[in-house]
Amino acid sequence: MRLSILTRLSYEVRAPATFIFAVQCGGGFGETVLSEEIELPPGVVADFIIDATGPNRLVRFSARPGAFELVYRAQVETDHVADHRRFQGGAVIEDLPPEVLPYLLPSRYCQSDLLTNFARSEFGGYPQGIGQVQAIADWIHRHVSYCRNSSPEGTSALDTLVSRAGVCRDFAHLGAAIVRALDMPARVVSCYAWKLAPADFHAVFQVFLGGQWVTFDATRLAPIDGLVQIASGRDAADVAFASYFGQVTPRDMAISVTAG
Amino acid sequence: MRLSILTRLSYEVRAPATFIFAVQCGGGFGETVLSEEIELPPGVVADFIIDATGPNRLVRFSARPGAFELVYRAQVETDHVADHRRFQGGAVIEDLPPEVLPYLLPSRYCQSDLLTNFARSEFGGYPQGIGQVQAIADWIHRHVSYCRNSSPEGTSALDTLVSRAGVCRDFAHLGAAIVRALDMPARVVSCYAWKLAPADFHAVFQVFLGGQWVTFDATRLAPIDGLVQIASGRDAADVAFASYFGQVTPRDMAISVTAG
Amino acid sequence: MRLSILTRLSYEVRAPATFIFAVQCGGGFGETVLSEEIELPPGVVADFIIDATGPNRLVRFSARPGAFELVYRAQVETDHVADHRRFQGGAVIEDLPPEVLPYLLPSRYCQSDLLTNFARSEFGGYPQGIGQVQAIADWIHRHVSYCRNSSPEGTSALDTLVSRAGVCRDFAHLGAAIVRALDMPARVVSCYAWKLAPADFHAVFQVFLGGQWVTFDATRLAPIDGLVQIASGRDAADVAFASYFGQVTPRDMAISVTAG
Amino acid sequence: MRLSILTRLSYEVRAPATFIFAVQCGGGFGETVLSEEIELPPGVVADFIIDATGPNRLVRFSARPGAFELVYRAQVETDHVADHRRFQGGAVIEDLPPEVLPYLLPSRYCQSDLLTNFARSEFGGYPQGIGQVQAIADWIHRHVSYCRNSSPEGTSALDTLVSRAGVCRDFAHLGAAIVRALDMPARVVSCYAWKLAPADFHAVFQVFLGGQWVTFDATRLAPIDGLVQIASGRDAADVAFASYFGQVTPRDMAISVTAG
Repeated sequence: MRLSILTRLSYEVRAPATFIFAVQCGGGFGETVLSEEIELPPGVVADFIIDATGPNRLVRFSARPGAFELVYRAQVETDHVADHRRFQGGAVIEDLPPEVLPYLLPSRYCQSDLLTNFARSEFGGYPQGIGQVQAIADWIHRHVSYCRNSSPEGTSALDTLVSRAGVCRDFAHLGAAIVRALDMPARVVSCYAWKLAPADFHAVFQVFLGGQWVTFDATRLAPIDGLVQIASGRDAADVAFASYFGQVTPRDMAISVTAG
Repeated sequence: MRLSILTRLSYEVRAPATFIFAVQCGGGFGETVLSEEIELPPGVVADFIIDATGPNRLVRFSARPGAFELVYRAQVETDHVADHRRFQGGAVIEDLPPEVLPYLLPSRYCQSDLLTNFARSEFGGYPQGIGQVQAIADWIHRHVSYCRNSSPEGTSALDTLVSRAGVCRDFAHLGAAIVRALDMPARVVSCYAWKLAPADFHAVFQVFLGGQWVTFDATRLAPIDGLVQIASGRDAADVAFASYFGQVTPRDMAISVTAG
Repeated sequence: MRLSILTRLSYEVRAPATFIFAVQCGGGFGETVLSEEIELPPGVVADFIIDATGPNRLVRFSARPGAFELVYRAQVETDHVADHRRFQGGAVIEDLPPEVLPYLLPSRYCQSDLLTNFARSEFGGYPQGIGQVQAIADWIHRHVSYCRNSSPEGTSALDTLVSRAGVCRDFAHLGAAIVRALDMPARVVSCYAWKLAPADFHAVFQVFLGGQWVTFDATRLAPIDGLVQIASGRDAADVAFASYFGQVTPRDMAISVTAG
Repeated sequence: MRLSILTRLSYEVRAPATFIFAVQCGGGFGETVLSEEIELPPGVVADFIIDATGPNRLVRFSARPGAFELVYRAQVETDHVADHRRFQGGAVIEDLPPEVLPYLLPSRYCQSDLLTNFARSEFGGYPQGIGQVQAIADWIHRHVSYCRNSSPEGTSALDTLVSRAGVCRDFAHLGAAIVRALDMPARVVSCYAWKLAPADFHAVFQVFLGGQWVTFDATRLAPIDGLVQIASGRDAADVAFASYFGQVTPRDMAISVTAG
C-alpha cells in the first residue's frame, strides 16, 4: 500500500534554541521510502543524524528568535505482514542479538521491574511468546479506556495500570512494560497511522519474536498495515517527535496520512 | 597507578537459567587493562558481547542446575585526570555527538523530567557546566546520608531526593538526574574502587563536559583516581553486574581491589 | 476587623446526585460569625452536619437533574493574634489532648512518614516548636513557586517537594507534612482570605503549639489576620469545599471577601 | 465463643520516649470484654485515652531509658454474625451518619481517588453493596499473593494493586481503597485473630452496609467469627499497635489467642 504523509509543525522561538526532530520515516520492516523532503527554517544548517538507539533518523538545528514552520513530506510503500500466527515461541535470552538486550530492561515510563508478579499471574498461563503478547494486547484493550488528553506527559505504565485510562502512548508503554516483565524484549515505536482520526502521531509497541520486531497496537485505532514507522526506543522519552532546548512555545501541528 | 582486581560471584541455579554479567573492566578514559582472565563454570560456552549502550563488555551463558562460581581477575593501569578545572563551559546541545544525546533523557531511575524546577532554582545560579556539576555533587554529599542497605532495588533519584538517604547507586542516580534536568548529558558508571571499604561494586556518575565524560562521586567514599570503570549506561538498569533469567539464588560475592 | 463574604457555586446535575458542601465559616480562633445565610436549590431539604473531624460544618442534600446555584453570605468579626512570638516550645506528645493525636499521622496528601530524614536534617537545628515551623514556612516560600493551575488534584506534599511548584493547597500540604515529620501536630485549613487576588478559596496549615492551633501561610498571598476559617482536617481530602456523588458538572464559582 | 488473649511487647528505650499503644480490645460489634488487665512498666503513670477516630482505646505514657515489657491479657466473648447475606443494598450517601463520612475519603495508604476507573470497570457490574464488596474481597484473594515480610511499612493500596503481593495490612488497604472508590464507606480494623498462624496482630477491612460496619478478610487466613477488634481507622496509620516518639528499639513481640 502506498501512503502520502504531510507533517507541519510550527514554533515560536523566544530565545535562541536547539531543536531535535524525529519525524522522518524510519524504514520499519517492509517499508520503503519512495520520496521525501523536509523544509527547514530559511538559513538554517541542520545535522541529519542516525542515532544508536533505533537506529533513528534525527534532524538537529538551532533557530533564532521568531516563528518558524517545519514541513515534512514523504511517500512510502508499506508491505506489512500482519499475520501474527507465524511468530511462534518466546524470547530465548541466550539467543537474542546484543542490540536487543536493552529492551529487556525497565525504562522511565515502562517500570517492568515492578510488574513481574502481575505479568506472571495474569499472563503466565498463555503460550509463551506470541500467545502471551496477544493476550496482553487484548487485556489492555479491554481494561484501559482510550481518553483523548487524559494523561499528562509524565504518565507511566504504572500510572496507566492503576488509572485504567490513557492515550496511545500510555497503551504502548503498558504493553512494552508487561512484555518486558515476562523477559521478552519490547520497544515503543512512534509512527504515522493511516485512518487514525483525528490525524496525529501514533505510538505502538513491538516485541522481538522469532528474530524480528513484531508490532502490536492495543488501542486498535488504526489498521496495523497502515502504520509507517518513525522512531523506536525504550519508551516515549526516546521517540519524542520534537525536543527543544531554549525558550520555545509550540504553536500548531498538522498531520495527514493519505492513501496513494 | 596499577590496580589488581579479583571478583568472585557464586550462585545456586535451581532450573536452567541464562546469565548476563557485566564485571569486566570497561576501558574507561585513561585506563589500560594489562591482563585479565575470567573463570566460567566448567563446560559452559559463553558469548562475549560488546553492547551498543556503553559500549560495554558482557558475558552471557546458560547454566544447568547446581552451584557455580564465576571468578574474574584483572590488572589495570589507570591514569586519571582528576583535575576538573579544565572542563569549562556547559553542554552545547548543537555540538553534542549523536551517541551522547540519549543521556539527556530521563530513565527508569533518573526522572530528570520531574526535576527541572528543582535543578534550575537550586543550581541555576552557578557557572554553567563544571561549576553547576560540582555544586550538584557537593549538594548531594551534604544533603544525602550514606546508609548501607538503606534502599531497596527499585529506589529512584526521586525517592532519594525525598528520603535523603541511600547507597552509592542512589547518589549516582540523583547526580545524573539533576544534571540531565539542566540539559547536560549524564550517565551512570559501575566501577571497581580502590580503598572502598568494605570492598564492593561502586557506582558514580559522569557528565559530558568539554567533549569528554568526566567522573563525579558524590559519596566521596573512594579516591576518584582509584576507580576502574566497568560499564556505563543511563542508570543502574543498564549496568547491573549480574542479570539472570530463570530460578537462581545468589550466594556469595567477594571483591578485592589492591594496588600493584 | 469585620469581613463580608459572598460565595456563589453553580452546578449542572445530569442524574440525581448528593452534595456535601463545606463553605460555611467554621469559627476559627478569634472569629465570630455575626450573621450568615445560605440559599439552597428550591425544594431541597438539607442536613446541617457538624462532623467529628474539625469539628466542621457541612451541608448535605440531594439534587435532581438540572442546574442550581448555592449562595452563601456571611459577616464575620475576626480578632487574630498574628504575633507568633508567644508560642514558644514544641509539642510534648505526652501532653497533647487526644483529639490532636491524629494530626501527628501521615495522610493522603501529607506523607510525613517519608520526610523524616529531610525534616530533621533541614530543620533539626532550629529551636524546637515555633522556631522550626517558621523556618519551614520560610523554606517553602523560598523554594516553591506559586503557579496558578500548576498541579492536578492528586498532587501531594511529596510531589511538591520534588516539583518545587504548586498552588495554595500544595503549600499547605507540604507545610503540614514537614511539621508532622518532626512529631508536631499539623492540620490543613480551608479559608476565605481578604485581599487574595484573584478571590478564591484559600488553604493554609496550622500547627498545635502552646495548646493552640497557630496558622501559617507559606504562600504569603494574603494577610494572616484577614483569614476566615472554613474547615480543618488532615489534608485537602478532609476540607473540600464541595463533594458530589452522581453525574455532576461544576459550572461557575465566584467568591468575594470585603472589609466592612 | 470465648477467647483468651495474651500480648507481650518489649522495648529498649535509649532516651526518654513517649509511647502510644493500641492493643486493648475495642468492643467491636457483638464483642464483650469479660475481663482484662494491662501491665505497664513499674512506676509509670499512663493516660487511658478514648480517641475520636474509632473511637479507639489508647494507652499513652513516657518511659525512661532501659528495657520494659508491656503485657495485656483479656478474655472476650464474641458473637459475630458472619452471615453477610442480610446486608443488602449499597451506601446511600444521603443517609450516612456524619461520623461515617470521613471513610469515603482517600487516606495515606488507601488512595481511592486514583482507583475510580479501575473499581467501576472491574466491579461496577456486580449488585451494589454487599455484592460488590464480596466481589472485591474475592478478587483480592485471587490476584494478590500473601507473602510474609513482602512489603515495607510505607506500602500502599496502589503499590499492592501493582505488585500483587502483600501482608494482611496490604490486603485490608486494597479492599478499603477499592470500596471507597465506589463511594461506599470503608475502614481498616486491627484485630486479634483466633487460629491465625503464626500468631500476630491481624488487619481486615470493614464496609458500612445497612447501617453497620461489616467485616471482610481478603486474606482468608483466619475465621471471621474468631476476630476480636482492637482499633479502627482510615488505614494502618490510624491503628498502629504501637507508636513511639524518642529513641526506641522494639525487641520482642508475642501474641496468643486461644479458645476458652
